[in-house]
Amino acid sequence: MGGTGTCPVMIDAATMGRYVTELGSRGEQPGGGLLRPQYSEAWVQARDLLADWMRDAGLEVRHDSVGNLFGRLVGRDDRRTILTGSHIDTVRLGGKYDGALGVLTGLAALAALRAQAGTPARSLEVVALCEEEGSRFHASYFGSRAILGLVGGTDFNGLRDEEGVTLAQAMREVGLDPARYRESVRHEIDAFLELHIEQGPVLYEAGTDIGVVTGITALCWQTVTVTGRADHAGTTPMDARRDALQGAARMALEIAAVAQRRGRPAVATIGMWQVRPGGANIVPQQVTFSVDMRHPDDAELAAMVTELRARCDEVAQAEGLGLDTEMIKREAPAPTDPRLQQVLAEAAETCEASWRHMPSGAGHDSQLFARHLPSAMLFVPSVDGRSHSAAEYTPDEACALGARVLATALHRLAYACVENSGE
Amino acid sequence: MGGTGTCPVMIDAATMGRYVTELGSRGEQPGGGLLRPQYSEAWVQARDLLADWMRDAGLEVRHDSVGNLFGRLVGRDDRRTILTGSHIDTVRLGGKYDGALGVLTGLAALAALRAQAGTPARSLEVVALCEEEGSRFHASYFGSRAILGLVGGTDFNGLRDEEGVTLAQAMREVGLDPARYRESVRHEIDAFLELHIEQGPVLYEAGTDIGVVTGITALCWQTVTVTGRADHAGTTPMDARRDALQGAARMALEIAAVAQRRGRPAVATIGMWQVRPGGANIVPQQVTFSVDMRHPDDAELAAMVTELRARCDEVAQAEGLGLDTEMIKREAPAPTDPRLQQVLAEAAETCEASWRHMPSGAGHDSQLFARHLPSAMLFVPSVDGRSHSAAEYTPDEACALGARVLATALHRLAYACVENSGE
Repeated sequence: MGGTGTCPVMIDAATMGRYVTELGSRGEQPGGGLLRPQYSEAWVQARDLLADWMRDAGLEVRHDSVGNLFGRLVGRDDRRTILTGSHIDTVRLGGKYDGALGVLTGLAALAALRAQAGTPARSLEVVALCEEEGSRFHASYFGSRAILGLVGGTDFNGLRDEEGVTLAQAMREVGLDPARYRESVRHEIDAFLELHIEQGPVLYEAGTDIGVVTGITALCWQTVTVTGRADHAGTTPMDARRDALQGAARMALEIAAVAQRRGRPAVATIGMWQVRPGGANIVPQQVTFSVDMRHPDDAELAAMVTELRARCDEVAQAEGLGLDTEMIKREAPAPTDPRLQQVLAEAAETCEASWRHMPSGAGHDSQLFARHLPSAMLFVPSVDGRSHSAAEYTPDEACALGARVLATALHRLAYACVENSGE
Repeated sequence: MGGTGTCPVMIDAATMGRYVTELGSRGEQPGGGLLRPQYSEAWVQARDLLADWMRDAGLEVRHDSVGNLFGRLVGRDDRRTILTGSHIDTVRLGGKYDGALGVLTGLAALAALRAQAGTPARSLEVVALCEEEGSRFHASYFGSRAILGLVGGTDFNGLRDEEGVTLAQAMREVGLDPARYRESVRHEIDAFLELHIEQGPVLYEAGTDIGVVTGITALCWQTVTVTGRADHAGTTPMDARRDALQGAARMALEIAAVAQRRGRPAVATIGMWQVRPGGANIVPQQVTFSVDMRHPDDAELAAMVTELRARCDEVAQAEGLGLDTEMIKREAPAPTDPRLQQVLAEAAETCEASWRHMPSGAGHDSQLFARHLPSAMLFVPSVDGRSHSAAEYTPDEACALGARVLATALHRLAYACVENSGE
């Protein structure tokens, strides 16, 4: 196979289009959007379809004890593996690309490499990971964590979905034994590569083909509770109120400004908002809202959190309101492997794809892998930056180009056996 | 009985306190606050307790075909009636005074008049009205409307509570036949008087004993829907968002300012607020919120509504958001009867109570009656203006003083037969 300057692996756009459309029909809702929560019927259908495709591509197919599905292209040395893939569970009414495209491009890459380059020096595997989104059991990255030996503390009987079904029950319903979760642990993975849609507008707006991800952003989730006093909406003069919603509205604008003043890539989002008691004719006593703040620089994120609390305090004091902020989640940034970044960048050059370095503002399975073994990510553009929505779209050609870059990088790692910096 | 300058009717504070506490235990929740929705078990208990007390007071007790409960002190001329009372259903986690105090002071007044003044010239009745709050079936003022012949269009099988129980089912469960609702219509009521807690801080702050209500405020309920675009909270730069919540927060502040600029008694309240899709890591696509605006001057209220729409339009256009405003309810002001206002004011003087004229910012059964027959209202102070809350409180002495003023006015109307201006 060729070196730099020619694209060694052929993957056609029509194949990628068919993969995306057909997999995207599993769990598709009448009004649009996917519902494919972990271990659901739609998830089983998607997994079975992928397993068929993997077999068709000549891969060895198996699933592990938590339900991660693997397709393996056995190398001459089968003791070590290069792993690629992503997840197939979806957020509520999500799109056909988030997660799925990483599995499908991995599958297309391995199929093309087997057909066009024969047996690799090291084994190659594509994986469809479990419950990345955490949208059924709030057990985000469950599949990755199982592989990395990080689910030891998981409460299989305590985690429940909205209907009250436990994680253990749901696993048993699809033929998995939760007690055997330790069997999913892997120790022989040399590298993890994940392709994903960008889920933002940066590549699309700039007309860039590929994003080589430098690291996954630092993240902080907080819950802010603003407490005022419930009063009758008709009889309490404006000047005699302690209206939690008015205070919370002011805080919401201040919090957005904390990110806006910093410019890209700082973000702050208020996505959940609950009013108590919540009657049209009652002055709100309490508003609870979520704040999601992210920045690739951990120190900058810490400064944003400090600033948020100061601004909310000012509003609360000025309006005589109670304020409580609670840290729900804090994730340090997860830098990707520099040598693998370089392999991806060279693969993009080989495929004559335009590319740029960029951070990932979203969490991904890669962020788990990156903390434990050499890992890297590549992004393909999302049209209009749409994400977590039925409107997610990446043209077939862009998907195929991404798959070729991925295949080229995998070829470099598993056939030419370029060492990665973590070894 | 005495004329102006002496208070003719004795009602002691301890009696009022016992009434309020005991009735307030029906539907009281372990964490505080009442749950006494229409036709619920707690409502039946409250009604039965009142019926016992009415009988103890020597009144003739009956309930009508929709469940309004009456206690009648038969006059020498039994063809005409002076009616007083209020409602015993509560908002969710409401207090012990809203509605209940109007029924209890009416009961105390009739009991005292019977004992101290004997048989009236015209009959006197106290009533506990149904579903004033509309908190179970959204059928506000159902009891008053039944008496006034205004429930003709009510969809007994279409109105449902949160559990899906229809109004008709709920009525049958407490032994009422919804088909007989027309039997509740009354034509022989000469006047309606209602005592109520102010539900605001005006009397309490000024240390005034009695408010003589000039009319019930005009009211407008609107639903505002702000539509942006759902995006991933981690990957969508702040400058690329169309965030419905940020726009809605700005509108919330503008809407409050519309009332604040006018000062008392203009009010504007945003009490309900729903975010879609409502995930911590999703930029809000849509926010729907309620706006309750009130002003005793109908033209001022119309101007406030116009101003609200202009301000929201400005925000929506500046932020690239969709905007939809829907009028849910519009109530014209309901002035009370001037002659009855004077009777109440004179009764306050007689009882040596301080008093003032004031509008009612809240809706009341009186507003229905006021549109069809001579009606008037008196307020007693709410400590700290608390209302629709477990913290509602009016001292027993203030309740008893209100009851004496009410009794004095009823004495004037039913014993001395002062004509009211509506006859």
